[in-house]
Amino acid sequence: MRILWIDPIVQDRLYTEALRIAFDSARRPDTTVDIISLPPGPKPRHLRFHAYEALVMADIVTTVYRFAHDYDAFVIGCFYDLALREAREVSGKAIVTAPCQASCAIAAHLGNTFSVLVGAGKAIPKMRENIHTYGYGHRLRSMRPLNMHVLDFQAQADRTMEAILREGKMAVDEDGAEVIILGCSAEVGFHQELQDEIGVPVIDSALAPLKYAEFLAETAERFAWYPSRVWGSEAPPEREIEAWGLFREPFVQPAPLINSEG
Amino acid sequence: MRILWIDPIVQDRLYTEALRIAFDSARRPDTTVDIISLPPGPKPRHLRFHAYEALVMADIVTTVYRFAHDYDAFVIGCFYDLALREAREVSGKAIVTAPCQASCAIAAHLGNTFSVLVGAGKAIPKMRENIHTYGYGHRLRSMRPLNMHVLDFQAQADRTMEAILREGKMAVDEDGAEVIILGCSAEVGFHQELQDEIGVPVIDSALAPLKYAEFLAETAERFAWYPSRVWGSEAPPEREIEAWGLFREPFVQPAPLINSEG
Amino acid sequence: MRILWIDPIVQDRLYTEALRIAFDSARRPDTTVDIISLPPGPKPRHLRFHAYEALVMADIVTTVYRFAHDYDAFVIGCFYDLALREAREVSGKAIVTAPCQASCAIAAHLGNTFSVLVGAGKAIPKMRENIHTYGYGHRLRSMRPLNMHVLDFQAQADRTMEAILREGKMAVDEDGAEVIILGCSAEVGFHQELQDEIGVPVIDSALAPLKYAEFLAETAERFAWYPSRVWGSEAPPEREIEAWGLFREPFVQPAPLINSEG
Amino acid sequence: MRILWIDPIVQDRLYTEALRIAFDSARRPDTTVDIISLPPGPKPRHLRFHAYEALVMADIVTTVYRFAHDYDAFVIGCFYDLALREAREVSGKAIVTAPCQASCAIAAHLGNTFSVLVGAGKAIPKMRENIHTYGYGHRLRSMRPLNMHVLDFQAQADRTMEAILREGKMAVDEDGAEVIILGCSAEVGFHQELQDEIGVPVIDSALAPLKYAEFLAETAERFAWYPSRVWGSEAPPEREIEAWGLFREPFVQPAPLINSEG
Amino acid sequence: MRILWIDPIVQDRLYTEALRIAFDSARRPDTTVDIISLPPGPKPRHLRFHAYEALVMADIVTTVYRFAHDYDAFVIGCFYDLALREAREVSGKAIVTAPCQASCAIAAHLGNTFSVLVGAGKAIPKMRENIHTYGYGHRLRSMRPLNMHVLDFQAQADRTMEAILREGKMAVDEDGAEVIILGCSAEVGFHQELQDEIGVPVIDSALAPLKYAEFLAETAERFAWYPSRVWGSEAPPEREIEAWGLFREPFVQPAPLINSEG
Amino acid sequence: MRILWIDPIVQDRLYTEALRIAFDSARRPDTTVDIISLPPGPKPRHLRFHAYEALVMADIVTTVYRFAHDYDAFVIGCFYDLALREAREVSGKAIVTAPCQASCAIAAHLGNTFSVLVGAGKAIPKMRENIHTYGYGHRLRSMRPLNMHVLDFQAQADRTMEAILREGKMAVDEDGAEVIILGCSAEVGFHQELQDEIGVPVIDSALAPLKYAEFLAETAERFAWYPSRVWGSEAPPEREIEAWGLFREPFVQPAPLINSEG
Repeated sequence: MRILWIDPIVQDRLYTEALRIAFDSARRPDTTVDIISLPPGPKPRHLRFHAYEALVMADIVTTVYRFAHDYDAFVIGCFYDLALREAREVSGKAIVTAPCQASCAIAAHLGNTFSVLVGAGKAIPKMRENIHTYGYGHRLRSMRPLNMHVLDFQAQADRTMEAILREGKMAVDEDGAEVIILGCSAEVGFHQELQDEIGVPVIDSALAPLKYAEFLAETAERFAWYPSRVWGSEAPPEREIEAWGLFREPFVQPAPLINSEG
Repeated sequence: MRILWIDPIVQDRLYTEALRIAFDSARRPDTTVDIISLPPGPKPRHLRFHAYEALVMADIVTTVYRFAHDYDAFVIGCFYDLALREAREVSGKAIVTAPCQASCAIAAHLGNTFSVLVGAGKAIPKMRENIHTYGYGHRLRSMRPLNMHVLDFQAQADRTMEAILREGKMAVDEDGAEVIILGCSAEVGFHQELQDEIGVPVIDSALAPLKYAEFLAETAERFAWYPSRVWGSEAPPEREIEAWGLFREPFVQPAPLINSEG
Repeated sequence: MRILWIDPIVQDRLYTEALRIAFDSARRPDTTVDIISLPPGPKPRHLRFHAYEALVMADIVTTVYRFAHDYDAFVIGCFYDLALREAREVSGKAIVTAPCQASCAIAAHLGNTFSVLVGAGKAIPKMRENIHTYGYGHRLRSMRPLNMHVLDFQAQADRTMEAILREGKMAVDEDGAEVIILGCSAEVGFHQELQDEIGVPVIDSALAPLKYAEFLAETAERFAWYPSRVWGSEAPPEREIEAWGLFREPFVQPAPLINSEG
Repeated sequence: MRILWIDPIVQDRLYTEALRIAFDSARRPDTTVDIISLPPGPKPRHLRFHAYEALVMADIVTTVYRFAHDYDAFVIGCFYDLALREAREVSGKAIVTAPCQASCAIAAHLGNTFSVLVGAGKAIPKMRENIHTYGYGHRLRSMRPLNMHVLDFQAQADRTMEAILREGKMAVDEDGAEVIILGCSAEVGFHQELQDEIGVPVIDSALAPLKYAEFLAETAERFAWYPSRVWGSEAPPEREIEAWGLFREPFVQPAPLINSEG
Repeated sequence: MRILWIDPIVQDRLYTEALRIAFDSARRPDTTVDIISLPPGPKPRHLRFHAYEALVMADIVTTVYRFAHDYDAFVIGCFYDLALREAREVSGKAIVTAPCQASCAIAAHLGNTFSVLVGAGKAIPKMRENIHTYGYGHRLRSMRPLNMHVLDFQAQADRTMEAILREGKMAVDEDGAEVIILGCSAEVGFHQELQDEIGVPVIDSALAPLKYAEFLAETAERFAWYPSRVWGSEAPPEREIEAWGLFREPFVQPAPLINSEG
Repeated sequence: MRILWIDPIVQDRLYTEALRIAFDSARRPDTTVDIISLPPGPKPRHLRFHAYEALVMADIVTTVYRFAHDYDAFVIGCFYDLALREAREVSGKAIVTAPCQASCAIAAHLGNTFSVLVGAGKAIPKMRENIHTYGYGHRLRSMRPLNMHVLDFQAQADRTMEAILREGKMAVDEDGAEVIILGCSAEVGFHQELQDEIGVPVIDSALAPLKYAEFLAETAERFAWYPSRVWGSEAPPEREIEAWGLFREPFVQPAPLINSEG
């Protein structure tokens, strides 16, 4: 199985390394995980703001289109699940998933309700809307901001852990959450300790979509359960794409950060 | 991985064989799938009626409780998803899933909308309620009855195939479905031909929960994402169970119909 | 009018006596109320846990099927409303109702909103789901746990009254409830004092379904408004039930605890 | 029990007579039913139009206020349920109900779904909104217009019966309704034949609220389950009403058309 | 453009003057705004209670019917939006709007969420229901009562300002509101200071519907986007209105309080 | 008032001319409307496909950011309302609106329900999701595809008119729509004839957002009702934008196609 994790920001060393370690121990033996970051240039270094998302959507969709034949599944590595609808349209037979949808799907199998620990209050309205649109709104007990910047999660691990423990405990005890979702893929690596501490499943939103991608890539291969290509999922015709020269740039070669088979 | 498929009716030879064949080719190499049917006795031979469901709920929950330490995951093999909440409560660290929830979760990743082909109009209200309760109601375009009896799906394969093709095509063309779900696990074995014919993913509701179980059992093992045990998911205390002698009978030994490791 | 109250646990003397007194003064003169408890054996003594519910569902449905011709209405005596759909299917012309649905229906006529005082947080997710499924979710302001065990409600009446007063007052003052529902039929007997104290209607969830049953049994008799028997309400055919020997055991004779006519 | 049926239009002889006959055989022996129509004057003779409703709302509310101490329950006799919120506010300890809310509540106990046969397409948007607001929207399979004028239902009984049979049958067979509601109280008297013909419960929306009123008046009397008077149900203060001279006119004396006790 | 503001209470001098000042500076140069209050008589002086609303609905609808040809738009000046459906039916080509619907529509364009500052808890259930019925329920973060009487807003301006500031700040900081709506048109004149203080848009619910009316009157004139007159919006026939003498009384002449063109 | 209409495709002469004519007669005298199309280059010529939308989102957001101080309002000229959330974040004090949200807001004031005539079935899922997310889902009676390509609407005017008339009539007569929305801004210019023919308001989705923008720009100016900048509407900090060089390219100068003041 070949999976491409699309990190929609310019590469942050600490975070990428945390992802690499997590993915390497999480993948199945026969799964290859590549991580791709945005090429250097005038790009946002985080996606807290929605206008920043708009700046990288073409890159994400272009990447999926360009590598649709090279990977079995793609993960868009941000809990905003940005460009999910757009990228799915041009993924051919490859699966496309993202942290929020995958994490909620798993949480819904492990408990009646969940809470999401997000970086900042800024993120709440869009994430709440996504969760409702996916159909998980009735399970959402609360969204608790950690009031930390996404780039600090890895850099200030102690502060992160403390905030996660405090808010996670309150989400369970006061809000009635049965499952916790870490609502930022940059919170990767913290789920285990919180889980041990508060005794409920804590969904790491980097691991969740990775494994979901692996799972759906397997069912795609076995049963031909590829993405639908009718009605709203109809793909653009190749002749238009060629005639208008679409999806050619920007372009970066995925750096094979994790490659189990090599 | 050890998975127990709980067939909540008295064993029907043709259907069990169809399941066995499907599961044997669908499982991962290291997965063992056992199938358990109800013991002989005054039991329903199908679950079209909800009162029949009530007759087997104790068996399902008792089975899960008794084998909670022997399996990594359980599948309750009926699209009504009966006893799902009840069985999850006593599964310990084991995953419990069922056809409707698992099929919808997969369909939601492959298209915007889906339709369900059910055996009979009888089934529609409960299934529609389940789908809405899970949070997939906004994706449901239609539920089309095949007007066939569940026991005839395997026995009258030609008639089944014809009905599935006719209704599946109409679900896509007229109702706007992007994905089709075969809304009865006894429709196992028919998804491929419909899929080839109408060109949209067709979710087999026997294969879907089997693979979902396998997937969640893996993430449970890797990340300790076991079922929550707080609030509504709190399990009954062992001392009560012992004191009152609960979950002892009825009892059957799972027949290891598929055992990849032996 | 003949009504059978099905108490889905092994008989608890204090609770049954409280029910008997309440029902005797609540029934119309020409109404007979019988109470049936589960026969001795390995049965749960309360239904806090959903797996316990599964252990008594066959009994409930069998009871309704067996006595469908002997009673005009059945009440399933637990606020989880367990087996409601299943029992209704085999009640023939008899009404089947249950505490949660009946209490909410009455509350919806007396105020815009309500809160439910439940025994424990454990009960909240299933009850909340039921209330939403019935269509009363927009009226639900809060579910407040009394943090008491169901078996203690009658045994520790002072503690019960204190908890009910405290939480009921807060439900009105802080949560904005216009009506209070006592969310456990074992809270029978406490509604009057709370009502006097806080001045809003307090629905006793044992009395509510009893009277609702009486009411619907009357309209069934007068206008032939019997339960529908089409689509999802279609009943299983007698020949199947006979051929397979269903609904024969377990079996108990209803003890006519309240019989106004004798 | 004393019930006042408020017919919000200028009295139509045929219709009032049909109501009288229906109520006289439907009431309990100890129930008195009075019917009040609007006094002569510039009033609408039917309420198909919402602006007409506005012309009679003061009359309805004034009637309820004036007779709050004289009746145990009021029924506002129009399937639009007009002035329900407003009248409830000044009913003191008396119950106020109306055809749509009462019919839906009964239908919800007899089947999973229902359809409503309305006079004209004109009525659909407001009635659909009411049904959703009450919380029964998920049960509503269809609203089928009979394309008849409300004043013709009784005058042209054959045509009414034919339309009701045709649309009722289609509601069950094609729309999946398990219960039929006759969505105009002027359809009184037709439910039995449709019921016999199509074999599903058919709720007469004149009888339904009458019996619901009787039922809730009984529980009010027995358990002090009077309307809530807090938050949104708070009643206006008497001193204001007096100071401003409100609810004095218009005024009509209820004509005791049905009086069982006299 | 000619707009008629219908103040559904007996004229309160302070409040009318506040409206006049606000409207005079808010209208476009070519817009005339008339304000009409109820004629003297036994009428409510505020509309806190729903029964009071019923007393003025005929006046509102009659006013709209009588002046449908004289104005381009009508505003029903109360945040309960009373008689909106009824008045729209007889407005001919004129627009009818009201504070709640117009304020929410504007707020939905300025932020993801909003909170409403209402006079009293009494108002919450009906307003909440309206906001949900309009489709803005998912944006509503909270409704905070100011615990002031509607007639005191203008008379006790300091107390009003203090309450608005306190609750508005909490709505933003604690409830997560991005926009504040002043949920009573009698709060006119206070939005600017709150806005300056807390830095989020504060919608004055007197100005909002006035400008919305002006806007829709313009699009009606330019594009013939008049109110629909089919299905639920079908108007009553003139011959009925004449034959029955409807909409003749009560009647008041609009006092042209603001007339820009004279 | 200065409004910028952002046409998110490479300029199509016929369509732009149709817009220009429509806007010139629709604007207020003191309103300037500029239209901006995408600069030449590898860009999509229509936005039927969601992946194409991703290719122009950066352009849209960059345009809004760059001209936030030059315009009072922006319209994103495509019924998918793409980049609406993202563009609003960086519009400073300027209003941002789009065809679907504005058309629905207007339709909701003119009738109870509406139907949308879309170019193709492809568009339905995303548009339906948007309409539900905005809160207008309960008003949506149907989405009827015209089965025409967006680029043909203006080029094949006769065929367009015929399709619009046919589907519009069916939306009203069969689906129960009270208002019709032309669900593609390229259908500009056709609303009047359909409106005359079927007698219900027909919302042109190019004119609707233009006038809505004008309206909200006026209330922004008059009352300081600028977009909220807290919680989910918080704008990115200038120092980040500068430091990372964001929103600099691509860039095009808006061609002042309509300028009323020159």
